[in-house]
Amino acid sequence: MIQERALIRQIRQLAASSLNKAVKKGIGDDCAILRLKPGCELLVTTDLCIEDVHFRRAWHPAAAVGHRCLARGLSDIAAMGGEPLACFLSLGLPEDLPHAWANGFLRGLLALARGYKVQLAGGDVSCASKVTADIVVTGQVPAGKGLLRSGAEPGDRIYVTGTLGGSAATLKQLLAGKAIKPTKSNPHFYSVPRLEVGTWLRKNRLATAMIDISDGLSVDLTHICDESGVGAVLISNKVPVAKNADLELALHGGEDYELLFTASSRAKVPPRIAGVVITQIGEIRNRRDYSSAIQILGDNGKVRPLPQRGWEHFARQR
Amino acid sequence: MIQERALIRQIRQLAASSLNKAVKKGIGDDCAILRLKPGCELLVTTDLCIEDVHFRRAWHPAAAVGHRCLARGLSDIAAMGGEPLACFLSLGLPEDLPHAWANGFLRGLLALARGYKVQLAGGDVSCASKVTADIVVTGQVPAGKGLLRSGAEPGDRIYVTGTLGGSAATLKQLLAGKAIKPTKSNPHFYSVPRLEVGTWLRKNRLATAMIDISDGLSVDLTHICDESGVGAVLISNKVPVAKNADLELALHGGEDYELLFTASSRAKVPPRIAGVVITQIGEIRNRRDYSSAIQILGDNGKVRPLPQRGWEHFARQR
Repeated sequence: MIQERALIRQIRQLAASSLNKAVKKGIGDDCAILRLKPGCELLVTTDLCIEDVHFRRAWHPAAAVGHRCLARGLSDIAAMGGEPLACFLSLGLPEDLPHAWANGFLRGLLALARGYKVQLAGGDVSCASKVTADIVVTGQVPAGKGLLRSGAEPGDRIYVTGTLGGSAATLKQLLAGKAIKPTKSNPHFYSVPRLEVGTWLRKNRLATAMIDISDGLSVDLTHICDESGVGAVLISNKVPVAKNADLELALHGGEDYELLFTASSRAKVPPRIAGVVITQIGEIRNRRDYSSAIQILGDNGKVRPLPQRGWEHFARQR
Repeated sequence: MIQERALIRQIRQLAASSLNKAVKKGIGDDCAILRLKPGCELLVTTDLCIEDVHFRRAWHPAAAVGHRCLARGLSDIAAMGGEPLACFLSLGLPEDLPHAWANGFLRGLLALARGYKVQLAGGDVSCASKVTADIVVTGQVPAGKGLLRSGAEPGDRIYVTGTLGGSAATLKQLLAGKAIKPTKSNPHFYSVPRLEVGTWLRKNRLATAMIDISDGLSVDLTHICDESGVGAVLISNKVPVAKNADLELALHGGEDYELLFTASSRAKVPPRIAGVVITQIGEIRNRRDYSSAIQILGDNGKVRPLPQRGWEHFARQR
């Protein structure tokens, strides 16, 4: 049986160590107080994770759920080229949830937070019928330097970090009833937010637009196209498909949390950034047809419209 | 049937008008971007509202639920003496929730937001088994000037804004099966965050500690005592009891969202601030007994320990 006050006390103890000097006042007052570096702007992102929608207790160990919840927000900070500062956790738990599950969740979340010096600085708790975690991540970026979705221009090249489809491939196996060991190296359970890559791209002014791939390449590239008012052509045999995945999963599978960015054709984008492989997968074009922003060039040399269906495809199955 | 993309589009349209110039980038990118005034610190608060825990659809009209969710966060900003800037909404909705309910919720939330120039700058949506709303409010305060719970000293006087117990009295009637008209003037449905009072107290440097009364006077005064390392004596016949309430509800009933603050005995605290009645209700003392931080002086001239039981008392009944 979870006791709300005991839970608050436990979270406050776990979060007591000072991880980030931007946090002037953490848990224990009406608001947290943060001080940004002079000349920096604030970044804020929120991600809602609900049991049986975003994860299943039967599939995902508690620590992996905690990791996944925070990793989503850190990935959003990475996609702006930002530096994360503090996180906030609103946590709804069933009254009959085992203590060990709540402990594991918090441990997984806080282990990832420590790795990036992100302080848990506040939140709220409540009872709920399903485990419900809303995670807010705050960050900072020098004023005017945040990388937006809206800067892509015709002629820009399209790049992606790492490989795609790996998380969706694991989800597909889980949905098929296969028992999958939740190893630390499996990005479905423990994705690595690409914060160093994001910061490098911002400092080196290489990216014209950026987003993280949370809903799937086809959906997230469409977001860049929509916000930038452009179209795109992908080259199917350039898309870096994860070992356990196929092209379909790489194009439409979500939760890879890789970075998708565009850069001028004159920019010298290195093959690796901060140790992560960078692959050119296509080109930004003028937008001719608003009903399908993205075209894909197949191995047969033919171009076809690419429907966006990463997110809708998987949302109902999780 | 709620469609997630249509809901996001609707929220983005409703939030499109620029309400606060601190918001450089609102909905539509991986993160929102905010710019604080130079020399200001950031305030962040999050509040989780879950159907059948914090409200009931049978009792609370959708617009009142939206108002209540945001009002909780604004009250936290007020309790720091801060100026609210932007809010973020993570919203989980049952798939069979009527469209009209979601519309009403958003209308209620955004009407309150407009009144205080608070921009809805981001969030997340998901399906959920119960209506689930986590609201983050950000604000700013000049560096080092945020009013904390931890500044109360022995000899300080204790003050409260408005009247207490009104919201709990309405809740008690609802629990007893009485039909209550959800009028705009009933603070249970439409509480008024005391932002002007908070700002006035911060600018005039009158308050030594402050908190908002969300869990009940006995609980929230204990928070001030715990964080300040002091005790307190309340004078029972000075506590401003709301018209429909009694002393018990005024001492332990939650959700009044009035401000509770302490000020030096030499401070000249006016009888009204920003039009709101201010009442002195007791005094801060040295803390002798950690098992009961608060004593109360009854009409019989006798002092007895005051248990803290606002929040625990009501949490299971909502």
